Amino acid sequence: MADHSVLLTVAYDGRPFSGWAPQDGARTVAGELLGAIRAMDPRVTEVRGASRTDAGVHARGQVASFRTERTIPLHGVRRGLNSLLPDTIAIREADEVDDAFHPRFSATGKHYRYTILVARDRSPRWRHRAWFVSDPLDVDAMRAAATYLVGQHEFDAFRAAGCAAKTTRRTIESITIGHADETLIVDVRGNAFLRNMVRIVVGTVVEVGVGRWPPAQVAEILAAKDRTQAGITAPAHGLELVEVRYDGRRPAAVSPDEDSR
Amino acid sequence: MADHSVLLTVAYDGRPFSGWAPQDGARTVAGELLGAIRAMDPRVTEVRGASRTDAGVHARGQVASFRTERTIPLHGVRRGLNSLLPDTIAIREADEVDDAFHPRFSATGKHYRYTILVARDRSPRWRHRAWFVSDPLDVDAMRAAATYLVGQHEFDAFRAAGCAAKTTRRTIESITIGHADETLIVDVRGNAFLRNMVRIVVGTVVEVGVGRWPPAQVAEILAAKDRTQAGITAPAHGLELVEVRYDGRRPAAVSPDEDSR
Repeated sequence: MADHSVLLTVAYDGRPFSGWAPQDGARTVAGELLGAIRAMDPRVTEVRGASRTDAGVHARGQVASFRTERTIPLHGVRRGLNSLLPDTIAIREADEVDDAFHPRFSATGKHYRYTILVARDRSPRWRHRAWFVSDPLDVDAMRAAATYLVGQHEFDAFRAAGCAAKTTRRTIESITIGHADETLIVDVRGNAFLRNMVRIVVGTVVEVGVGRWPPAQVAEILAAKDRTQAGITAPAHGLELVEVRYDGRRPAAVSPDEDSR
Repeated sequence: MADHSVLLTVAYDGRPFSGWAPQDGARTVAGELLGAIRAMDPRVTEVRGASRTDAGVHARGQVASFRTERTIPLHGVRRGLNSLLPDTIAIREADEVDDAFHPRFSATGKHYRYTILVARDRSPRWRHRAWFVSDPLDVDAMRAAATYLVGQHEFDAFRAAGCAAKTTRRTIESITIGHADETLIVDVRGNAFLRNMVRIVVGTVVEVGVGRWPPAQVAEILAAKDRTQAGITAPAHGLELVEVRYDGRRPAAVSPDEDSR
């Protein structure tokens, strides 16, 4: 049989990894994944990913793909990889895709979730999963601030200094902020994101939440197109890639009750 | 000022610890706590706990107490201990109690929560927090099985072989089973529990859930008073001590939305 492409929906705990993208001498999610795939087919040389998540960022719906000549049944690919991978990475779905598919370039949207622990004291349970903010947060002000960011904008003020993207025009489809247990959950959905964009959005909205800025300040930051005017980059460990969306193909990465948009 | 007693509400991630109770040569939660307390007052020699949680069991509302002659303000005790403790343990509340108070003997009830990951594949996110059960579970059958356990019974069949309790009569006030995200949550409330009792209850109810036994089998197991007839002891890492209850004194260990009983 000729080469074909396999799509994987991947969950991971970002803590032990230096991010998604392969790096010499560093433990990365794509590196671990490639090692496991090569144990099944040594001729595979590359794993492509939808999102280059940073060190510490988690995922439940990262999408990756690789090309192989071997014809292992898809459930065998999923089970085989899960038996080879460390317990910090799991394959949730394996699917056949046509050769034109690329996890990043074919993506039409992404959903990221940022978790904030709003509490008086730090919490053992959330220490690797949420940004601990001990100041009281005005959630209505945060929601008002977020409305300025929704829509198509040039997000120069909301990207990391080292971001190499040629254009900064992106569309944020929605930002929703809600309580869950002792945390505040910020769900950000958009067509594509600049480097650190979600974390800078969260850092900026939290500045509004603690009362440092009025919500309308966010419109000025956006217009200034100056990174130094926006808030801090919220810590990586609060961020999770929930889902990557494709037209006509939608990997089932999220349980239905969370995917109600 | 004379001796007085301080009550602590304690949260911890059970994973790095050999349980609550101090043991020579082992890292325990009470051992870490005593070390931190002694850094504030070297004359303290003992920390008492409400529940001797096993290795791997988590807590958000463990209750502990110690006697001290020092008169540090209570918020200073909380903040001081949190700065001394590892990030796997946190003090949520510090409170003054009278000398007759004992965290275990004064307790009138406890609330434990057991989390089951119901999924086709293991999950990085839940690997230290939930028991992964890949078989489909009949939740209605599990609820029917649980009804036989509610009330006052002699729970001989539901205690560990090494349990030293003199009497086995305990009261389970309620067992509720509900879905949350991709997990199934089993909340067990009772006046007191035998060693491993909650975990054996969960292991038994899961046997019913997978269809090995009909719900009414649980009545026979209870009547037989024979540990070997009950289900397995569910793994420690799915269990969390949520709250310890006291008459007239109720440490605020749980956020209001979870404490709606």
